[in-house]
Amino acid sequence: MLVALGQFNAVVGDLNGNSEKMRKIYDEALRRNADLLCFCELAVCGYPPEDLLFKEHFLADNRLIVEKLASEFTEITTVVGFAESHNGHNYNSAAVLQNGRIAKIYRKGRLPNHGVFDEQRYFQAGTEPAIINVSGNNIAITICADIWDVDWLDDFLKNAGQLQMILNLSCSPFHTGKVKRRQKIISSCAKKFNCAVSYCNLVGGQDELVFDGVSCFADSTGKIVVKAKAFQEDLLLAEVTAAGSGVQVRAVEPLAEQPSDSVDEIYRALVLGTKDYVEKNGFEKVLLGLSGGIDSALTAAVATAAIGAKNVIGITMPTRFNSSETIADAGKIAENLGIEFMAIPIETVLGQFDGSLQKVAGWNSEGVGYENLQARIRGTILMSLSNSTGALVLTSGNKSETAVGYTTLYGDTAGGFAVIKDVPKTLVYKLAKHINKINDKEIIPASIINRPPSAELRANQKDTDSLCDYDLLDKILLGYIEQDKSAKQLIKSGLPKEAVKKIISLVDKNEYKRRQSPPGIKITPKAFGKDRRLPITNHYKP
Amino acid sequence: MLVALGQFNAVVGDLNGNSEKMRKIYDEALRRNADLLCFCELAVCGYPPEDLLFKEHFLADNRLIVEKLASEFTEITTVVGFAESHNGHNYNSAAVLQNGRIAKIYRKGRLPNHGVFDEQRYFQAGTEPAIINVSGNNIAITICADIWDVDWLDDFLKNAGQLQMILNLSCSPFHTGKVKRRQKIISSCAKKFNCAVSYCNLVGGQDELVFDGVSCFADSTGKIVVKAKAFQEDLLLAEVTAAGSGVQVRAVEPLAEQPSDSVDEIYRALVLGTKDYVEKNGFEKVLLGLSGGIDSALTAAVATAAIGAKNVIGITMPTRFNSSETIADAGKIAENLGIEFMAIPIETVLGQFDGSLQKVAGWNSEGVGYENLQARIRGTILMSLSNSTGALVLTSGNKSETAVGYTTLYGDTAGGFAVIKDVPKTLVYKLAKHINKINDKEIIPASIINRPPSAELRANQKDTDSLCDYDLLDKILLGYIEQDKSAKQLIKSGLPKEAVKKIISLVDKNEYKRRQSPPGIKITPKAFGKDRRLPITNHYKP
Repeated sequence: MLVALGQFNAVVGDLNGNSEKMRKIYDEALRRNADLLCFCELAVCGYPPEDLLFKEHFLADNRLIVEKLASEFTEITTVVGFAESHNGHNYNSAAVLQNGRIAKIYRKGRLPNHGVFDEQRYFQAGTEPAIINVSGNNIAITICADIWDVDWLDDFLKNAGQLQMILNLSCSPFHTGKVKRRQKIISSCAKKFNCAVSYCNLVGGQDELVFDGVSCFADSTGKIVVKAKAFQEDLLLAEVTAAGSGVQVRAVEPLAEQPSDSVDEIYRALVLGTKDYVEKNGFEKVLLGLSGGIDSALTAAVATAAIGAKNVIGITMPTRFNSSETIADAGKIAENLGIEFMAIPIETVLGQFDGSLQKVAGWNSEGVGYENLQARIRGTILMSLSNSTGALVLTSGNKSETAVGYTTLYGDTAGGFAVIKDVPKTLVYKLAKHINKINDKEIIPASIINRPPSAELRANQKDTDSLCDYDLLDKILLGYIEQDKSAKQLIKSGLPKEAVKKIISLVDKNEYKRRQSPPGIKITPKAFGKDRRLPITNHYKP
Repeated sequence: MLVALGQFNAVVGDLNGNSEKMRKIYDEALRRNADLLCFCELAVCGYPPEDLLFKEHFLADNRLIVEKLASEFTEITTVVGFAESHNGHNYNSAAVLQNGRIAKIYRKGRLPNHGVFDEQRYFQAGTEPAIINVSGNNIAITICADIWDVDWLDDFLKNAGQLQMILNLSCSPFHTGKVKRRQKIISSCAKKFNCAVSYCNLVGGQDELVFDGVSCFADSTGKIVVKAKAFQEDLLLAEVTAAGSGVQVRAVEPLAEQPSDSVDEIYRALVLGTKDYVEKNGFEKVLLGLSGGIDSALTAAVATAAIGAKNVIGITMPTRFNSSETIADAGKIAENLGIEFMAIPIETVLGQFDGSLQKVAGWNSEGVGYENLQARIRGTILMSLSNSTGALVLTSGNKSETAVGYTTLYGDTAGGFAVIKDVPKTLVYKLAKHINKINDKEIIPASIINRPPSAELRANQKDTDSLCDYDLLDKILLGYIEQDKSAKQLIKSGLPKEAVKKIISLVDKNEYKRRQSPPGIKITPKAFGKDRRLPITNHYKP
């Protein structure tokens, strides 16, 4: 049996566009003589559609599309995910299209409601397995989380008889380590049921999420035999054959290249996430402030890889606090990337603004307000340019500074998309070096990588004046944010008490800033945003 | 049996502060000879604690507090809500404290996961009823949503025998119409079980939510006999007596005054929501831009009622586009409210900024960028004042303009709290008149109420130039946002096609602005924020 997995970039809400893509993939699968074609979870409407699922007409439109596809996909058994309204309940469903009609519908049984997932907000859990037969093979259809709890699945499928294959339609978002973890799950599932597993994942960026694709096939020994491309569309085919007491999988084309390591994987996630956010939201160009620091340099490099140098504009907006070295580095990174570069000094506007504020009691031209003022003038200039050019403003804040609020609200946080929002500062450096490595030249100048980080909002400022060393900061943040440890636990694990207390207090009290910051790409197991929902008003001091 | 309901303002995460409040209430209940004292759902940790529930130490701390209270509350049976970790699962629980120990624990059976609720993200559903006996009365303990599905509850309690009372611990957030709906539920529950219902609700503001209190008692005929205060702490007592085949409830003190109508109710919600956001987040003062328009006038009036005139600062920041009438009205509202007032004209800064942007291709001193620039300069001035005074900036955007994005991101949306974010423009006028009525004088000048709304960002601008008439706008928004209707349905219902299409498209494409706007108080059945979760990247065009 030749099985085809149509790994495509489904756009949320674009029901017609998604069907058009599926039609083209179907034609290709037909041309290549596939016996079974599978698309991802909610392929018709994209993932996650969130509260669009509360609109009756949205569900009705999903149904219409599936019926249309059924009437067209007459020659290959095709399985497609869609949002289904049935007897007053909504389901995350998969339709089996055979012989011009919807032959069967499977309704997802396990609805994740943790992390970034809210499926119990929208869907009722299905209670019936769906088994289909293709070319004499007994195949169970499952959707995403259904296979993540093998014991549950074993019980769910107890009357299914011996399976030759489990088909899984997924929308499994990326974070570092996820691809491996997912393949382990697929592998144990194959072994448990002694059958092949064919796994079709979504690919593409959707707001905070990036779906990496990497659809794959496992044979009944649990070996992942074939993988689709990462972070790209792909049509993956494999020959699945029951043989003896097991099921074999045979690749029918050369294996796709995969990311070289976890930094490379994260880099590709950032590039795809940025590209899709920009393009799916109808932008052609982006602009960003280039300070000469490493965060904006990395952001510019990712943007350039995502949408091309001709679509990226870098702006430097110096004051007297910016050193000639950083100003020069801002120009240099722009030159290395080949992007448009513009300098708009803000010293005069800053002086005028400062003058207007002199009459306010408590205003201090050497205080934090004056520092923030510089960032806010820059934010205003970038937004003004966005208004006049139609370009989307990218922000450059990393996860470490976003965590502790080492940012100016409506200043450097002003912009539509926060490319490296989930990238800790220590990883920022690794990504910068990775970019130089894969380009085989110094795209991001060594002077930027080696200079101690500074916001340059007052004379001789260093980030470490206000925070601690970034290695230590990132360790504390990992423990507090991603592992939900208490101050006590972190101190007990050997981290310095004073720093732990200070950093935790900063993280807590800056929740209000994060709530107003632009969305950014999730690359860690726990990102700010849908993944981590904390009250702003919060008196808990652990 | 004398039953006491301790309706208090529990602060999220303030476990010690909340216990201290409960101790005082317990002492008062003891002094008044109560037989049973009940606090609200999650009284120990406040509601909703959100992802604090993922911290093991948070759950451990909840348990410690409950054990401490049990050892102290030895003389009255007391029921208190807390977050419980038990055998590897988390529960939304109620502890029954009797004779110095935790005599029983009830675990909430119905976990809401719609609207603003995410309880299935955090909790496992309980499966066992908890029946207690106080003064010979058979009492079932329930938590919030447990009583909202009477058929489920009937089945759940089928072995409980005849009850004299159902005790319900709630955290039921306010929206217009909610108090009536809730009382209808309580009433049908009392009738169904032919017993009294005593209902203890949370009171207070928590980020987007306001809890109105209005704890109450229903007798077995379903009559709501006694109600606690609305939007205030209260200790509500009633005598509950089994008599013949029913259960009577008798008030033991004069009935509390209740809001006069729905506008009054909304006004009180806004005042409490503002007061609690400001105070619980450690601010003393607020500041806001006073344009001389109705939105900022209403916001200032609400803030003044919430935290007192001496804590509110109004700033007017005129340009050549502001008429002398609106400038005068800004001063007049400040004077009427007795708040501090400051004028910082922005014409010079605007000129300087505009000059700096002249060299940018596409910059146009008559374009939308120039309009936004004015709003952004004002936002920057307010934030600079916030930095120098420590006051929280309030924004003044109403629901209608927030919906269609008739706002400048980082301009008039800049600020920590959006008081009237969920108030449609047509309701803004009603609230303004209400404020004048309850104060028995013209706090908000008639000239403000009667002037056609204008952003005054260019000469002779009117809101209706860009939008439609606000009556029509609010009708379309109600249908599209709160009722999830499609364009087709709205047009079919008689609304003009062109306006419907235009407004829906504006609502959809401004999701990105709302995502970065400050939290504001939910007063409608569906507010922007946790209540309405739509993708930014969204190609659905119904």
